[in-house]
Amino acid sequence: MAEQIRVAIAGHGNLGRGVEAAIAKNPDMRLVGIYTRRSPEHLKPRDAVTPVHAMSALPDHTDRIDVLILCGGSKDDLPRQGPELAALFNTVDSFDTHARIPEYFTAVDAPARANRRTALISAGWDPGMFSINRIVGEALLPDGATYTFWGDGLSQGHSDAVRRVPGVAGAVQYTRPVKEAVDRVRSASRPTLTTREKHRRECFVVLEEGADAEQVHNAIVTMPHYFDEYDTTVNFISAEDLARDHQAMVHGGFVIRSGNTSKENAQVIEYGLKLGSNPEFTASVLVAYARAVHRLNAMGQYGAMTVFDVAPGLLSPKSPAQLRAEQL
Amino acid sequence: MAEQIRVAIAGHGNLGRGVEAAIAKNPDMRLVGIYTRRSPEHLKPRDAVTPVHAMSALPDHTDRIDVLILCGGSKDDLPRQGPELAALFNTVDSFDTHARIPEYFTAVDAPARANRRTALISAGWDPGMFSINRIVGEALLPDGATYTFWGDGLSQGHSDAVRRVPGVAGAVQYTRPVKEAVDRVRSASRPTLTTREKHRRECFVVLEEGADAEQVHNAIVTMPHYFDEYDTTVNFISAEDLARDHQAMVHGGFVIRSGNTSKENAQVIEYGLKLGSNPEFTASVLVAYARAVHRLNAMGQYGAMTVFDVAPGLLSPKSPAQLRAEQL
Repeated sequence: MAEQIRVAIAGHGNLGRGVEAAIAKNPDMRLVGIYTRRSPEHLKPRDAVTPVHAMSALPDHTDRIDVLILCGGSKDDLPRQGPELAALFNTVDSFDTHARIPEYFTAVDAPARANRRTALISAGWDPGMFSINRIVGEALLPDGATYTFWGDGLSQGHSDAVRRVPGVAGAVQYTRPVKEAVDRVRSASRPTLTTREKHRRECFVVLEEGADAEQVHNAIVTMPHYFDEYDTTVNFISAEDLARDHQAMVHGGFVIRSGNTSKENAQVIEYGLKLGSNPEFTASVLVAYARAVHRLNAMGQYGAMTVFDVAPGLLSPKSPAQLRAEQL
Repeated sequence: MAEQIRVAIAGHGNLGRGVEAAIAKNPDMRLVGIYTRRSPEHLKPRDAVTPVHAMSALPDHTDRIDVLILCGGSKDDLPRQGPELAALFNTVDSFDTHARIPEYFTAVDAPARANRRTALISAGWDPGMFSINRIVGEALLPDGATYTFWGDGLSQGHSDAVRRVPGVAGAVQYTRPVKEAVDRVRSASRPTLTTREKHRRECFVVLEEGADAEQVHNAIVTMPHYFDEYDTTVNFISAEDLARDHQAMVHGGFVIRSGNTSKENAQVIEYGLKLGSNPEFTASVLVAYARAVHRLNAMGQYGAMTVFDVAPGLLSPKSPAQLRAEQL
């Protein structure tokens, strides 16, 4: 086997732990270090042997790492870390604040380019695999409409919003596609769908002692932005049920492109994900793109990139000739 | 708008007609000519104004055409045309004899490279979009299994085989995925499935006058390679029913990758197509790849390529900055 790609992780939350798991599934890669802002001695790597360092050690480790996977959050971590670390390493991140992607791209591109580094931003599944399917669907069926449905999935942001409601001791929120809407889209009828028609929201809530269930229910379903535009179900459950049944970070969804290639003929393309663990799947995407970034950098392709810029063959450990012979 | 890409078609069967329809849906392209081996004066272009030429005129038209889409068959036309025309033009084709792709790639690569042309081979949906989803699914979930199902779809090869049975006046054959198998695969159980368990075959047959239905039935269901390994249903219908209900070249199918990112967490990726017209969809894929080929050639990327080598952004008429801002 060729030399293994030396990958490191910056940030050790759910996503960082997912990257550890993903690297273990890819024999052409080796996890050479985990970098954390917490005390390194308190961090327990999955395999118990990966070296753990303080984030501040990164500038001294540039010659140990082929690709650094940034596992921080899009709100506070990446806007600062992305540009800084792209000057020192080839990087992959999952920056997912859709509206700020152009600005983030520019901030990462300049330092990466100046230092002959390759920085793949906004990988994952949305943005990421879903985005690819949106643009390819549109390119294959220009006369058509694209629909993205999310779920069934645990939404972290919405769960947090429910937890902030007075009287709520614990909660999770699931986003669910509305079956009737999905069926209409799949039938190639190209419906126009409102927010309410596409998704519904379902909450599982543990009340604080003495809290008023009706008041909590109303506070949730009328919450602006988060719930008021949706049909929302609120189920009150016990703390035990919440702990037992609602810990899995399931998610997924699908991108459907429905279009006509002629007046007579409709075509439907659908890409769907059913994820047992949202962070582990996102991590797996980041790791596959780390392989591509390593190759692109070796090919002299520097600067910021997105999943739109990466040929699918670069994600595979197999050679182009092997892919053509076995999998085309 | 930037200058339109000048596209031409070599070969005017179902696929060539589909390419005509697809180019009409893409305002950044212009169909500059159809080349045929039949008498040009007998060919009726879809829009009635596209110039039609003899195939033999192609060598004199190299400066009129940015990308030539080869719409001939994989058995007899492309093995000869592909290498010849890749020396003169940037080309896109749908060579689909999976086992001979490496040999065809090599035959096309040398003349294309020597003449600074770009030749994209084996585009379409299988090989093509399905192949991409097979390799990307495997890259994202290395610990997993890949399943390809075809149908519901009209199979040309199997329909022809039924038509050759003595006593058959007309026939079509549909390949259908077996629902139970699909459900098992979607459930992430990674079953091992036999040929018979994955697909079934359904024939609609018009008998010749005086033909023995049972004899025809038996000849079909026991036919080696084509039917003997499948559960096959044979329906006898009238010539009128065949003409009325079975002309659409529907097809499709799905690629499912089922895998684990950790012992605890299973993930399922599914890519599906529901095609009202198989040749028109294939043609739409070829046309999107013609755009990519035009750009790759302008970037100095010469030689034979496959869909594995093309970044998704190159398929879209939009600029990278626009794609990042609007669709990532």
